[in-house]
Amino acid sequence: MLELSGPIELSDHRYGKAENRIVRVYRDGARHEIRDVNVSTVLRGDFADAYVSGDQSKVLPTDTQKQTAYAYAKKPGPQPIEDYALALAGHFVDAIEPVASARIEVDEYAWERVEVGGIEHDHTWVRQGTEVRTAAVTVAGKGSAQRAWVIGGVKDLTILKSTGSEFADFLTDEFTVLAPTRDRMLATSLAVQWRFADTAGIDWDAVYAGVRARLVGTFATQHSKALQQTLFEMGKAVLADFPVLAEIRLAAPNKHHFDYDLGRFGIENNGEVYHAADRPYGLIHATVRRADAPEAGQAWEQ
Amino acid sequence: MLELSGPIELSDHRYGKAENRIVRVYRDGARHEIRDVNVSTVLRGDFADAYVSGDQSKVLPTDTQKQTAYAYAKKPGPQPIEDYALALAGHFVDAIEPVASARIEVDEYAWERVEVGGIEHDHTWVRQGTEVRTAAVTVAGKGSAQRAWVIGGVKDLTILKSTGSEFADFLTDEFTVLAPTRDRMLATSLAVQWRFADTAGIDWDAVYAGVRARLVGTFATQHSKALQQTLFEMGKAVLADFPVLAEIRLAAPNKHHFDYDLGRFGIENNGEVYHAADRPYGLIHATVRRADAPEAGQAWEQ
Amino acid sequence: MLELSGPIELSDHRYGKAENRIVRVYRDGARHEIRDVNVSTVLRGDFADAYVSGDQSKVLPTDTQKQTAYAYAKKPGPQPIEDYALALAGHFVDAIEPVASARIEVDEYAWERVEVGGIEHDHTWVRQGTEVRTAAVTVAGKGSAQRAWVIGGVKDLTILKSTGSEFADFLTDEFTVLAPTRDRMLATSLAVQWRFADTAGIDWDAVYAGVRARLVGTFATQHSKALQQTLFEMGKAVLADFPVLAEIRLAAPNKHHFDYDLGRFGIENNGEVYHAADRPYGLIHATVRRADAPEAGQAWEQ
Amino acid sequence: MLELSGPIELSDHRYGKAENRIVRVYRDGARHEIRDVNVSTVLRGDFADAYVSGDQSKVLPTDTQKQTAYAYAKKPGPQPIEDYALALAGHFVDAIEPVASARIEVDEYAWERVEVGGIEHDHTWVRQGTEVRTAAVTVAGKGSAQRAWVIGGVKDLTILKSTGSEFADFLTDEFTVLAPTRDRMLATSLAVQWRFADTAGIDWDAVYAGVRARLVGTFATQHSKALQQTLFEMGKAVLADFPVLAEIRLAAPNKHHFDYDLGRFGIENNGEVYHAADRPYGLIHATVRRADAPEAGQAWEQ
Repeated sequence: MLELSGPIELSDHRYGKAENRIVRVYRDGARHEIRDVNVSTVLRGDFADAYVSGDQSKVLPTDTQKQTAYAYAKKPGPQPIEDYALALAGHFVDAIEPVASARIEVDEYAWERVEVGGIEHDHTWVRQGTEVRTAAVTVAGKGSAQRAWVIGGVKDLTILKSTGSEFADFLTDEFTVLAPTRDRMLATSLAVQWRFADTAGIDWDAVYAGVRARLVGTFATQHSKALQQTLFEMGKAVLADFPVLAEIRLAAPNKHHFDYDLGRFGIENNGEVYHAADRPYGLIHATVRRADAPEAGQAWEQ
Repeated sequence: MLELSGPIELSDHRYGKAENRIVRVYRDGARHEIRDVNVSTVLRGDFADAYVSGDQSKVLPTDTQKQTAYAYAKKPGPQPIEDYALALAGHFVDAIEPVASARIEVDEYAWERVEVGGIEHDHTWVRQGTEVRTAAVTVAGKGSAQRAWVIGGVKDLTILKSTGSEFADFLTDEFTVLAPTRDRMLATSLAVQWRFADTAGIDWDAVYAGVRARLVGTFATQHSKALQQTLFEMGKAVLADFPVLAEIRLAAPNKHHFDYDLGRFGIENNGEVYHAADRPYGLIHATVRRADAPEAGQAWEQ
Repeated sequence: MLELSGPIELSDHRYGKAENRIVRVYRDGARHEIRDVNVSTVLRGDFADAYVSGDQSKVLPTDTQKQTAYAYAKKPGPQPIEDYALALAGHFVDAIEPVASARIEVDEYAWERVEVGGIEHDHTWVRQGTEVRTAAVTVAGKGSAQRAWVIGGVKDLTILKSTGSEFADFLTDEFTVLAPTRDRMLATSLAVQWRFADTAGIDWDAVYAGVRARLVGTFATQHSKALQQTLFEMGKAVLADFPVLAEIRLAAPNKHHFDYDLGRFGIENNGEVYHAADRPYGLIHATVRRADAPEAGQAWEQ
Repeated sequence: MLELSGPIELSDHRYGKAENRIVRVYRDGARHEIRDVNVSTVLRGDFADAYVSGDQSKVLPTDTQKQTAYAYAKKPGPQPIEDYALALAGHFVDAIEPVASARIEVDEYAWERVEVGGIEHDHTWVRQGTEVRTAAVTVAGKGSAQRAWVIGGVKDLTILKSTGSEFADFLTDEFTVLAPTRDRMLATSLAVQWRFADTAGIDWDAVYAGVRARLVGTFATQHSKALQQTLFEMGKAVLADFPVLAEIRLAAPNKHHFDYDLGRFGIENNGEVYHAADRPYGLIHATVRRADAPEAGQAWEQ
């Protein structure tokens, strides 16, 4: 039993305001546009006194961070979310002296314009899909030493293929009872994040649309020997097409769909009736990157 | 203080298997189809002995109800959900002697075929929207005395309009501090159920698509003096267009979006920046029906 | 195909403010008390014009209902929740002319005083248990015609017994594959509501504590031939001990715990290792009442 | 715009089975004991071929990981969870050749023995509290090079104090509108993890109980100038009392309770009626450690 006796220290700290639920309407004329976001702010810096002695004199209240997030939703506005997050993070670092770095995380919920009589309506939408576009931006340092990192992403992208997937020839031990299969259903709910090599000159919306299409297209067309392989191929396809990306991280629960045993009732079931299980689920992670990717720095630090 | 002394009796009872998560794939050729449903069964009948004396001899296990729900997912299959529920409910009433009535509730999750290179993929889909199609079917009675009721529906249909809504000229009392407004955002998550006048000769899918379009279209185009008015107009529009419907019930949380006070910071906010609140929320209910609607019978009994 | 052509009418309606999250602190001296509630209001009455013509002149805003719920949290205060709900419902019916009846539903979250050095702390608590105490109160009618109904309850009361439960000798058909068992785990999450015969002279807190103890004690000690029997015995035990109660409604998911098959690995499993399944689950309902119970009237109307 | 052209590589990967819901009953005699856990496994190692070429020959299926988690729930059993996780992680590293390291995360749900007539019941329990005990264990390396790290923890520990908290004298800028306060309610839902300096000779249950008591006691008795200060003092108190701990990480949402403005209605509100807000919320992190703490190694790597 190892017992320690050294001094007790504050070794890390950060704070912010989480989940500011901001809706922004652009009303230039009769045809409105809408952006619906969930914004979280995190500040790092010279805040140790607040912890150690209770001195709040360098602490920008989380309420102030909230006000600022709403103010910046007017201008520059949350469109696209990467630029909004860069502006908001930059403000905290530039304007608030004790702030060494600021991280802004944004989830964006998509809305789809309603059609009435075949014509798109000017100011009415329904929520579109379950998937959420994400951005995580960090700005660190003052003046000419300032650095910025941008991570784009998508989560809750639920996707399923009813064939073109197998799992066989795996390692076995005394606890292995799983039967190999050459044709199974494959379903997952993707959480993917891509790190940009730099932050200048990017068309964020175009990259988002393109990455999503490559993820979905690869999942569909790549014959899957395992979810591991599928993830790697998805990541590889994205990086190949988008040289502005340094790295991509994919996490995928294997949402198991079990063939239901109808043979007991004299009913044939050729991959037609499945039970969709809740728990447990496989959980697969992969990171794919360019060998010449710049250092990640604080990009992934939450 | 009123004290009772009469005999203690079992006055009502029912039981079933809830939330069978069934996925059905139709694989006639290379192009598959998919239906993803959550099925709950409820049986009423001669089951009092199971409660009062613990005698299970008339109780069909909930596990058996589950097996049957999966077996019926092969044939007739859950397409459309109203016919599936009618068949499954009919089976329980017809084949299981103690069953007096069966209620089947089905939630259906929509999937959208993935496009790869502009072409629809044969066997890959992503989850579509947040809304859920619902059916609640009751079959009661044996032989020629048998009756059936079908309720179609939609829930979690999240819809928002950024103008065309007001709330003013309301009743006030000493606790009223709300300011009237002539232009506000209106957002809700609709839960709607429509009762069919009869169960014969209905194109369930066509009615679903048509009702959904009328709900959405009316929400968009009807200037709203209150969510109450909007709900009534939506229900009226649906009944007017679908004479096969007897009654429609609408429930709608008023998902408040508050104009954010940016004036404190010298920033104009003309209905552009909103805070989307979680709780509390207004909750409005309306039932609209045809005066010549047949009696609801057991249609709404859960 | 039956088609209707009668006039389209508003046949039912109600509205209110849901989920007001109110915390009340009683600070008479250094030792504080706390009550943490979630309050929903529902009004019925002369509100058809708001729906049919958009005329809001008789509509008390849901925002006003919210303000009133908070004001009544000061006085009389939410302690006990039944009296609070009676007062708040009575206010809406008495003070607001168009209101015909008001229903107040309250969930109460329990907090447990922290102990420091073996001594109860004056003003610090941790959340206690997962269960929620509930009340649903309806007041209808003006002046001497006024009536009131009170329903107490508990929900999310998760309870489990590791033996003393069986399920056997049940009905079988061609879809029955379940094996009978003489010893199984029984787990559920109870939702129970009890209707009082009258509203005068009741010690609400004492009834709540007593009913909860009878529910839990009966679940523990009654050998279970099925969850149905357990529910009936619980209801019977409560009514037998509390003559002020007219009726009790119990709903219980059968949270299945499956014996895990370790025999495949040469490991004996004598009811020791279980898989706790999520879905599907059995769902059992029972209502037990006194034969001389007064009519329920609007007590159960939500 | 920086564009990369280097080779695309798999740079990191891991996989496992998440959320195995295992319940273990100890039935030595009539008085049973229960442990209710949620177990997730993660393996790292020589699995790149599964990703890059689809070769599964070194992949131990996640289904096998599940079977093993259940088998180990019989022996050694999940009591305490730290020992169970060490045994299970050790098995994967020792017995499965391609595994370089294994991480086991366990959540444990507490159950409280029911009392019937003042006597503890032998085999019936209700769920206790909302808080969850956690463990995260990593074992890496083969044979004499093997290392192990243990992190204990608690999450969802919801705690509130109705006085003894202030927030004032903070930094202000043009977006600051928050008023300072010398007396406010402070509520949070703690997530805390403590890293052990070593894994030998620890009484895991005693440390858990002791740490929890110190966390709760410090929250109660330490006058709070900010949640930051409270967290630091909690961490410091724990490390001071438990020299077997190297480091403690605390995360705490500031669950805002706003004084409700009843003055508008002529009602005094001296910290008695609060609105409990959902979102946004402050989110404060602190890490406290011993200066002589051994390196964290893979302890925190998920």
